[in-house]
Amino acid sequence: MELWFTEKHTDYAKFSFKVKKHLFSEKSPFQQVDILDTYEFGKVLTLDGLVMVTEKDEFIYHDMITHVAMATNPEIKKVLVIGGGDGGTVRELTRYKSIEHIDMVEIDEMVVKASREYLPITAGKLDDERVNLYFEDGIKFVEDKENVYDLIIVDSTDPIGPGEGLFTTEFYKNCYKALTENGILVNQNESPYYERDAKAMIRATKKIKKIFPIAEVYQYHMPTYPSGHWLFGFGSKKLHPIKDFNPDKWNSLGIKTKYYNTDIHVGAFALPTYVREMIEGETE
Amino acid sequence: MELWFTEKHTDYAKFSFKVKKHLFSEKSPFQQVDILDTYEFGKVLTLDGLVMVTEKDEFIYHDMITHVAMATNPEIKKVLVIGGGDGGTVRELTRYKSIEHIDMVEIDEMVVKASREYLPITAGKLDDERVNLYFEDGIKFVEDKENVYDLIIVDSTDPIGPGEGLFTTEFYKNCYKALTENGILVNQNESPYYERDAKAMIRATKKIKKIFPIAEVYQYHMPTYPSGHWLFGFGSKKLHPIKDFNPDKWNSLGIKTKYYNTDIHVGAFALPTYVREMIEGETE
Repeated sequence: MELWFTEKHTDYAKFSFKVKKHLFSEKSPFQQVDILDTYEFGKVLTLDGLVMVTEKDEFIYHDMITHVAMATNPEIKKVLVIGGGDGGTVRELTRYKSIEHIDMVEIDEMVVKASREYLPITAGKLDDERVNLYFEDGIKFVEDKENVYDLIIVDSTDPIGPGEGLFTTEFYKNCYKALTENGILVNQNESPYYERDAKAMIRATKKIKKIFPIAEVYQYHMPTYPSGHWLFGFGSKKLHPIKDFNPDKWNSLGIKTKYYNTDIHVGAFALPTYVREMIEGETE
Repeated sequence: MELWFTEKHTDYAKFSFKVKKHLFSEKSPFQQVDILDTYEFGKVLTLDGLVMVTEKDEFIYHDMITHVAMATNPEIKKVLVIGGGDGGTVRELTRYKSIEHIDMVEIDEMVVKASREYLPITAGKLDDERVNLYFEDGIKFVEDKENVYDLIIVDSTDPIGPGEGLFTTEFYKNCYKALTENGILVNQNESPYYERDAKAMIRATKKIKKIFPIAEVYQYHMPTYPSGHWLFGFGSKKLHPIKDFNPDKWNSLGIKTKYYNTDIHVGAFALPTYVREMIEGETE
């Protein structure tokens, strides 16, 4: 028997890979959670049938969601991660000795349980003593926080299902309020290539631009996400990701990474013209 | 009936898209040539069942194969394109008034015929009066050329089938010889992500590094190629793509592009650490 997983990237384009074994499959109160063992990508976590994490390329996503902000402000001490139940973002954060406190708020405990069992590569640092896990709604969690976090990372799914509220103006405003005076917000910001993803990306970016004095978008190559062209948003109260970035400082930390480096930090903000025009355009 | 095209990116991963109509299908002496009309990507040219050009994203490939070299040396007057039968690379070159002469050497006339009929978006400038078409073997064509071209672009398929000889040391040496003293070689340089593509990329890069005093690799987001993470090589006798690059000069030309811009020119050379290590590593 041949077992193949297929994800529809649009109604007319799909990506498939061959499965060794379907290791885990349960429906949580929030979504369908599956873990596959695959030939090409190692273990793969999917939520509602969409690829979230693969052993082969999770390092790309987790490097880029974490180190760009940390290298912009190496003084970051207190971090909030919303979503990110696989633990990969927390793993990268724990590599900074300077970080004192990490709150991770994941709405779906089952994602963490499945990741702990099958994806120790990402979940292995969730037990770091600086990490506090909350299994609750991140939207509610930030509502009453003021001037608490130096960095908030929104490590969300697409704006469908449980991730939807993490793409609203109200949520971004609460993040702004929850951040300290040098605070930075990094958010999973979809992709410019396929129409539906691009619309979500444009909407999120324009909302963040209205709230944060500094709002930029940066890109990376994520082969197992639709189109492979994926973006993060960078919203900031004071610090600019290029102008206030000191490569020597980050390099002196001696953190070894497979994707991120201080050149790609700068290069990632150089967007194709069509992406720039989407973000700067007048359309809502 | 539903018609889907499928390309195997590896033995264990494949990409598929829905087809409106199979417009053209013939076997040339060199390869299988097909044109599909598709829902997501418009018209698509495939060679031996591999996606070469789609109406939706050909601009990315053709911008990046052309403008990086042209912006590094806006004095380029004489250009050789090897391969590129769809015509997209020539189209971008013809936008430079300063270019006086373009030789395009495509081994397979059928690719040009099919593109002229179904892909005027790329083939539309093959009749520019500065363009000379040769339907012959590019490897042979460069053998007796000395100090002729300011730029050689190797717009090839993968190193299997007719493209294989375009990835050899001997061919690159002949390109070096055929270039003028400020000459630049740009070559289709595969991808770092899947194993087979990465091996071809490493081999080609190391060969070019041995021949050209300046040899760099740059990346771009090409969603319809395997992994979406694709590379070009930049071999050069004298001019460095960053140090000798004057953004103002290129911007003053007023060439409007959808992907390329002078920021991405620089950003594209900032490679992920794992790609750097592949290129700089000791393995052959």
